[in-house]
Amino acid sequence: MAATNLIDGRAIAEQIHAETTQRIAALTARGILPGLAFVRVGEDPASQVYVGMKERMSARLGVASVTHVLAGVATETDLLGLVARLNADPKVHGILVQAPLPRHIQGDRVYASIAPPKDVDGFHPVNVGKLMLGDPSGFVPCTPAGVLELLIRSRVPIEGAEVVVLGRGNIVGKPLVSLLIQKAKHGNATVTLCHTKTRDIPAHCRRAEILIAAMGVAHFVRADMVKPGAVVVDVGVNRVADPQAKGGTRLVGDVDFAAVQPRAGLITPNPGGVGPMTIALLMRNTVWAAEQQTSG
Amino acid sequence: MAATNLIDGRAIAEQIHAETTQRIAALTARGILPGLAFVRVGEDPASQVYVGMKERMSARLGVASVTHVLAGVATETDLLGLVARLNADPKVHGILVQAPLPRHIQGDRVYASIAPPKDVDGFHPVNVGKLMLGDPSGFVPCTPAGVLELLIRSRVPIEGAEVVVLGRGNIVGKPLVSLLIQKAKHGNATVTLCHTKTRDIPAHCRRAEILIAAMGVAHFVRADMVKPGAVVVDVGVNRVADPQAKGGTRLVGDVDFAAVQPRAGLITPNPGGVGPMTIALLMRNTVWAAEQQTSG
Repeated sequence: MAATNLIDGRAIAEQIHAETTQRIAALTARGILPGLAFVRVGEDPASQVYVGMKERMSARLGVASVTHVLAGVATETDLLGLVARLNADPKVHGILVQAPLPRHIQGDRVYASIAPPKDVDGFHPVNVGKLMLGDPSGFVPCTPAGVLELLIRSRVPIEGAEVVVLGRGNIVGKPLVSLLIQKAKHGNATVTLCHTKTRDIPAHCRRAEILIAAMGVAHFVRADMVKPGAVVVDVGVNRVADPQAKGGTRLVGDVDFAAVQPRAGLITPNPGGVGPMTIALLMRNTVWAAEQQTSG
Repeated sequence: MAATNLIDGRAIAEQIHAETTQRIAALTARGILPGLAFVRVGEDPASQVYVGMKERMSARLGVASVTHVLAGVATETDLLGLVARLNADPKVHGILVQAPLPRHIQGDRVYASIAPPKDVDGFHPVNVGKLMLGDPSGFVPCTPAGVLELLIRSRVPIEGAEVVVLGRGNIVGKPLVSLLIQKAKHGNATVTLCHTKTRDIPAHCRRAEILIAAMGVAHFVRADMVKPGAVVVDVGVNRVADPQAKGGTRLVGDVDFAAVQPRAGLITPNPGGVGPMTIALLMRNTVWAAEQQTSG
């Protein structure tokens, strides 16, 4: 099959950026500058890269971002203190604490300390709960929200679809289940969540009309696990050894793209699929936060 | 198959009551009386019956319960005011607002107003979120927690089991998914959630090693939908016409028990299965609330 079965995440992310830009213009016309605070702890290289990408996108769209970097020896109390100051700062509409955090800091306590209306990552328990309850007043985590937008804007039928989600992480797999099962316009899917304790993952995958891989295992999804014509979404980001690559490693997804693409109805490339969507949804969540906090 | 494949919910509930009674004795030895406030609005007959059962069980176990009845014309503001007073009352460790509420009151706002440490029903978004995140510091809703206890105490293997949940309500279906998918001792199941938009529910049911029916459709699960040897849990409570019955109606479950029992490995009767467990878990949640609020 030709490249026509590709879901172009970069192009779809640009559609969303265009919508977000309009909303930012409407805010700035009212004298409101959407403000986003990034918090990074220590010198994790991946965190630096991710925050850098988000900073650049903020600048491009007109979101006022400020990055706070704590040293790797900072305590949980230090971090909670910073979050408390950001919670109280009216110029900050969104707060993003970049994972991973150093081992001596409990991430769940930090996420739960962010004021829910500023929790643009959607990791606070109250936002997780609202998502599950079908209450639209909370934030949806950026990556699952981005996956849903990819499907919607690629006109993939979701209602009644057999969906298999691989991976039960709190950031992707679980919130995807919460999103897709809802009695809602872009929900109503029949979802099976597979994970490391699932006995026969390939059999489940072969049933899937929409297969979403978020296990974090390089090239886990092989061609023989994909129903012909299925929509395949690859959320994985795995660093693997590659002597030919600069630095001796490269990033690959959870899907063996070259083998799976000919069999799939639609498939996300990786990179260029889900990744750009995550940032697009972060920007959209931030603008929504600013709108909510400045309305009425 | 003989009646030996019955899961005796009444007997298992009594085991839990015995454990709860011991914990209550430990509390009262410290001068603490677990306090549970029931709130009922209007004269819904089912609500009256349910609250009455819970009051009697509280009295039997030594939980101090007080029932607050608001007239059907009470406003949401009235109800929120009552909840606020109960939130502030140190003698009240648990608060239960009985569903259904009159149509002019938004239940989700009321549940979200209960202080999370007193939310023994587990309906507050923060408790819903904690359950999904795998954070054990929240309350698990009583009926799903009761279903899990039925399975555990009947020695049903849950890890790796193929589970199909029928029904996506916020009170049973969704929290069951959250419970069973967790990477946890009594989780690790592979769960599929089916609902009204699922295309082929019978096919999913026939895959299930554990089939949990919580759709609210009388006798929905027929024998040909059950894999031989499967564990069948019937959460449904449906009132159907029966000219022979007193009052012309009777209560039946979501499972056609007579037809399904011979095929099931284990099955809950209904009544006498899940129902008694719901109250047992409410009592356990209340005692846990009292323990948490009076520790250290």
